[in-house]
Amino acid sequence: MENPKNAFYAQSGGVTAVINATACGVIQTARKHKTKIGKVYAGRNGIIGALTEDLIDTSKESDRDIQALMHTPSGAFGTCRYKLKSLEENRAQYERLIEVFAAHNIGYFFYNGGNDSMDTAHKVSQLSRKMGYPMACFGIPKTVDNDLVITDNCPGFGSVAKYVATSIREASYDVASMAETSTKVFIMEVMGRHAGWIAAAGGLAQEREGDGPHIILFPEVPFNQAEFVKKVKQAVNDHGFCSIVVSEGVRNKQGKFLSDVGTKDAFGHTQLGGVAPTIANIVKAKTGYKYHWAVADYLQRSARHIASKTDLGQAYAVGKAAVEMAIKGENAMMPTIVRKSNKPYRWTIGQAQLSRMANKEKMMPKSFITKDGFHITQKCRDYLQPLIKGECPPPYRNGLPHYVRLKNKPVKKILNTEFKI
Amino acid sequence: MENPKNAFYAQSGGVTAVINATACGVIQTARKHKTKIGKVYAGRNGIIGALTEDLIDTSKESDRDIQALMHTPSGAFGTCRYKLKSLEENRAQYERLIEVFAAHNIGYFFYNGGNDSMDTAHKVSQLSRKMGYPMACFGIPKTVDNDLVITDNCPGFGSVAKYVATSIREASYDVASMAETSTKVFIMEVMGRHAGWIAAAGGLAQEREGDGPHIILFPEVPFNQAEFVKKVKQAVNDHGFCSIVVSEGVRNKQGKFLSDVGTKDAFGHTQLGGVAPTIANIVKAKTGYKYHWAVADYLQRSARHIASKTDLGQAYAVGKAAVEMAIKGENAMMPTIVRKSNKPYRWTIGQAQLSRMANKEKMMPKSFITKDGFHITQKCRDYLQPLIKGECPPPYRNGLPHYVRLKNKPVKKILNTEFKI
Repeated sequence: MENPKNAFYAQSGGVTAVINATACGVIQTARKHKTKIGKVYAGRNGIIGALTEDLIDTSKESDRDIQALMHTPSGAFGTCRYKLKSLEENRAQYERLIEVFAAHNIGYFFYNGGNDSMDTAHKVSQLSRKMGYPMACFGIPKTVDNDLVITDNCPGFGSVAKYVATSIREASYDVASMAETSTKVFIMEVMGRHAGWIAAAGGLAQEREGDGPHIILFPEVPFNQAEFVKKVKQAVNDHGFCSIVVSEGVRNKQGKFLSDVGTKDAFGHTQLGGVAPTIANIVKAKTGYKYHWAVADYLQRSARHIASKTDLGQAYAVGKAAVEMAIKGENAMMPTIVRKSNKPYRWTIGQAQLSRMANKEKMMPKSFITKDGFHITQKCRDYLQPLIKGECPPPYRNGLPHYVRLKNKPVKKILNTEFKI
Repeated sequence: MENPKNAFYAQSGGVTAVINATACGVIQTARKHKTKIGKVYAGRNGIIGALTEDLIDTSKESDRDIQALMHTPSGAFGTCRYKLKSLEENRAQYERLIEVFAAHNIGYFFYNGGNDSMDTAHKVSQLSRKMGYPMACFGIPKTVDNDLVITDNCPGFGSVAKYVATSIREASYDVASMAETSTKVFIMEVMGRHAGWIAAAGGLAQEREGDGPHIILFPEVPFNQAEFVKKVKQAVNDHGFCSIVVSEGVRNKQGKFLSDVGTKDAFGHTQLGGVAPTIANIVKAKTGYKYHWAVADYLQRSARHIASKTDLGQAYAVGKAAVEMAIKGENAMMPTIVRKSNKPYRWTIGQAQLSRMANKEKMMPKSFITKDGFHITQKCRDYLQPLIKGECPPPYRNGLPHYVRLKNKPVKKILNTEFKI
């Protein structure tokens, strides 16, 4: 009897609080089907590990440590920001992948990332066929940006959403109690360079009249300073304070990022990042209110301690589903999340061809943003609400979340040829 | 039989994740001793509520809502940044306080705050005696800065400490997995204008060789750029990444805040706040490493969702103890936390005279900072560790922490005279 083919799994791009839950879904499901799938090799630092033949043998990890991936944020095998060029531009990269995969008897390719990664998985699938070493290739969705098409949402997003909504609620309570004599305006900057999904999630913190956040600044809505300042003053007049969520991707009418035009360092260089201080300066100059600002940055996407149980479940499910598709003989597919109903929230796993996913971006629909451009609509709430539902705290030791670090033992190299990245 | 005297309770200064637990301790304990203490009136927006005769009748709140204060961050009655002047400078303020207290039959004064507040409580106690309307006055400790003398620690601090250590651990995991091709340096700014207690707490996230944070920048240690840059490079060489906690209060050798000298806005104005971007710019200029930075700001002190159970218990206990002291006939006192042992951690409530607390600041001892000035010692860990221990999550509704908002019904004014703040 022939040895079953091994599988390759890699994490790509920015990590999330639950991408390791997807890895857990992949590895646990493969372990249950040892007659169909041999070992799961992970790429050290993502696809770079495949190109450099730096593979991690996940079979050396205990069941217990693999289970602990469920509560461990970040990318357990390392990830990379490295986009493969097009086939025309750098065919050698793709051929190298196939060469490494063939050397290690890898017949399954699982690529866990955003739309770039779906594109890569699709190309590997096409080229492997042409090269006479057919591979079953799967994308597995992951991105805090929530911008993949077809799938209802993206694993990783629900947990950032829960973090952002929780944080702005807590900070809003704080400011409300200080506003009489101190801070009246609070600004929290969140991720989302192109789409406002994460900023929108902050809106869930507002349940009653007067609750923060009072203003959300979306990348989808060109920044209108006069309207914004009016809105700030109104909130302070009506509620005593104003709490604001701003997306890092907010642009002015000329399409320039506010974070690029606002702040210069002591040497006169534009300081990258930091739209919150830019907004704070506008508030100060135009209203005189005392302000505070926060930039959540990586805290938001690594906050496994406040991850959404729904998100965690979906992250696991897409990993499991990808392996099950492989076993069924599918190819060039991505498992999707399909929403069956809002109340009660029900979902199932579907699938989409990689060719339909690749390099597309899902923006916030217009109907999700209020007419004035400063908040979310009920329709948006109905969409977002279920995604943050449920708690799944990690285990704690000595007062801190106890996260696993895998052994990450290398697979012995077979090719031993160098490949320049 | 004479009606028992009422009590006045006010929250002062910056709020915390657990100051409402202290309020809960005060109110629940007073409700158990109705023959000794009448109603508990809270100052709306702190001491300002007393000066303006804007009192809140906490007896109108249900037992259930008072209990919900245990899991609600911020100051439920409002607080203020308003320091009473010295007796010589503004005796009228103190006399007004006594006038309002006398009008409302208030015989107990509970002031929940930092060292300024202890000073105020002490003065009210002295003056009331002189004016022939003796009041029993108590300070109740509260400050995320952990800088009150005598008491082992300050309620509010343990929860910020837990938030900061958890956050830098999570972000460090994140960066570690990205560092090969992307961000190599992560900088997180935390509170602590004068003392480095909060920054020090970040150090607890480091349990094993290579764990972040690799560098802590304390207000107690003048910033040495060359040494700092060397340290960053070393961490990246040794561990692949460098994770940094920086206190907002870090100063250069001339004693100027780094946050004041670093960043200017587009108009050339010094931008207040934000030492993290200043440090990031140094990293960029001197190492070229890709960096990210976060500023936690109010998120850290309002993060009830990750509060320390030890801290919560102590916050309640000091509130309860203050009322019990009042019933016993004490005066001009503050309940303290007394540490009995580290392992296992045991503590009890003690008491200190307000005169001994007022206007003093407890800095980090030298023995808590490593010789190179960039991390915490084992002695510091032994002190901090128990304070972050235990979890006490709030109830969740629709995926978000469910916090109470009190009715905050006003007490009918008796004086009806205006008092200018």
